[in-house]
Amino acid sequence: MSRARKILAVTGGVGGAKLAVGLAQLLGPDELMFAVNVGDDFTHLGLHISPDIDSLTYALAGQNNQELGWGRAGETWQFIETLGSLGGDDWFRLGDKDMALHMRRSLMLQDGASLSAATQEITQRMGIAHRVIPISDDPIRTVVQSAKGDLMFQHYFVRERCAPSVHGFRFDGLSDAALNPALAAYLADCDGVIICPSNPFVSVAPVIEVAGLLQASAHIPCIAVSPIVAGAAIKGPAAKMMQELNMPATALAVAEHYEKSYPGLLSGFVIDASDQASIEQFPLPTIATPAVMVSLEDRIALASRCMAFLDELAG
Amino acid sequence: MSRARKILAVTGGVGGAKLAVGLAQLLGPDELMFAVNVGDDFTHLGLHISPDIDSLTYALAGQNNQELGWGRAGETWQFIETLGSLGGDDWFRLGDKDMALHMRRSLMLQDGASLSAATQEITQRMGIAHRVIPISDDPIRTVVQSAKGDLMFQHYFVRERCAPSVHGFRFDGLSDAALNPALAAYLADCDGVIICPSNPFVSVAPVIEVAGLLQASAHIPCIAVSPIVAGAAIKGPAAKMMQELNMPATALAVAEHYEKSYPGLLSGFVIDASDQASIEQFPLPTIATPAVMVSLEDRIALASRCMAFLDELAG
Repeated sequence: MSRARKILAVTGGVGGAKLAVGLAQLLGPDELMFAVNVGDDFTHLGLHISPDIDSLTYALAGQNNQELGWGRAGETWQFIETLGSLGGDDWFRLGDKDMALHMRRSLMLQDGASLSAATQEITQRMGIAHRVIPISDDPIRTVVQSAKGDLMFQHYFVRERCAPSVHGFRFDGLSDAALNPALAAYLADCDGVIICPSNPFVSVAPVIEVAGLLQASAHIPCIAVSPIVAGAAIKGPAAKMMQELNMPATALAVAEHYEKSYPGLLSGFVIDASDQASIEQFPLPTIATPAVMVSLEDRIALASRCMAFLDELAG
Repeated sequence: MSRARKILAVTGGVGGAKLAVGLAQLLGPDELMFAVNVGDDFTHLGLHISPDIDSLTYALAGQNNQELGWGRAGETWQFIETLGSLGGDDWFRLGDKDMALHMRRSLMLQDGASLSAATQEITQRMGIAHRVIPISDDPIRTVVQSAKGDLMFQHYFVRERCAPSVHGFRFDGLSDAALNPALAAYLADCDGVIICPSNPFVSVAPVIEVAGLLQASAHIPCIAVSPIVAGAAIKGPAAKMMQELNMPATALAVAEHYEKSYPGLLSGFVIDASDQASIEQFPLPTIATPAVMVSLEDRIALASRCMAFLDELAG
């Protein structure tokens, strides 16, 4: 049993959301808050789309599309197919149900609601008791610096299918973005931070680098779960990016990246059992445990192991 | 065989679109143009919706929903059902495919296209060769003056299901709206105008009353087809409105309304065969012919009879 009872989980896309689901099974709404990346947000077809918030929302509501690995369960595609037939932009595959979420959020934002307030309304309507908090209500937009020039993240990720070689990232708006006050308040007496297995460059960095987050979490045990297992990303372009950035695509390189980029942030690191052989090389306390989450039991087991690790680190 | 070979058809909603389909079977794209009401247009969920243009577009493309009597064929409702579940406005039943059309149009308008240009793009994409022309590219908005106060037309028609008693209509923007130049040019050598069986108060009036239309069509034979058959509207609130406006809900009262409101506009009037007994009372040349259109053959037969009537009137 774990003692830590007020946890902040940092999540990006689909991979992070899996661990988030496990944590939500272990911890109640007063014990767990999610800090979510907004760097992938963009405006498309006039709608405000928040891919990472939505991935987490669908996962927590049990409405994630397990066949596709992204998007909403029970989805249909009449809107986007028809839009394409009428000459409209159809590269971003918006499902009919997914559209409704983007429309609802966009209209709330147009009516003056903050992204936080819109997210709260939507998550509550979907039966989620835990608080899903955008890292900031101010716009942060991840730009991928690539062989095809600067690309908005979703243009790189979806339209270009991660094909262009990457040499860097920029987070437009980051220096002006205020840390979400709900997060700042929660961190004041938070027992631990868990960085879920999300892409360190494009999912985690825009969260960690928001002004005030590192300071607010300086005295809180923080662990990160490697999104790289056995030299490959479980999902998404993390491993490909690491190679293009001249880093080995290994869990060790992820840990070294965190240590170098954010000295003192991490108290511990979690790698998959398959990477056990390299564990002595890690520059910080590290545990190896099954970290490839297929079933709900996998998610809960990893969450439980992370909670225990935080307790161990807290002494 | 008819001689008239350049026809303008004035259409409103679903009823008018039926005759339009018949006319389009008889006349080629250079021989037939549609002038369509935009008074029902409104902005909903941030989208520009043009119900009458869309009813005509779907009908001409063979994509009208025959089960519902409105909307697009093969429609699904995932978007609007999900929007409702998220607390959004779901009284206007936007189908998933229908949404795509509104989105496409809205984005073109936002990019600076005129409603005419957007309509042309969409109708061509849907395989329609005939020109569908909004009566004006300027906004005209029908307001229903009712027992529940002033209501935007779609609020009256869809949200309130035509329940509030009506005592008048207002067409906001009408006095500033310019007749579509494509219509003005077409009328210069047009052989005949057919007012399809649409609601005279809310579908036809906003078209006829646009500045310049009556003058441009003054010397052109013009006939109207009654939307009232045997004392009832085939579809929609026309008969209910007539009662509330203290007019008998008869084809004769429709003809008298046109004669009184637009003296000299009509050269002839078309009623259903079931109203034959009253034909001597009509204040203008009138024919009785089957005007309830169920099959495509019905649509073609009525269109053919209208064409012949125009020829007779032209002498």
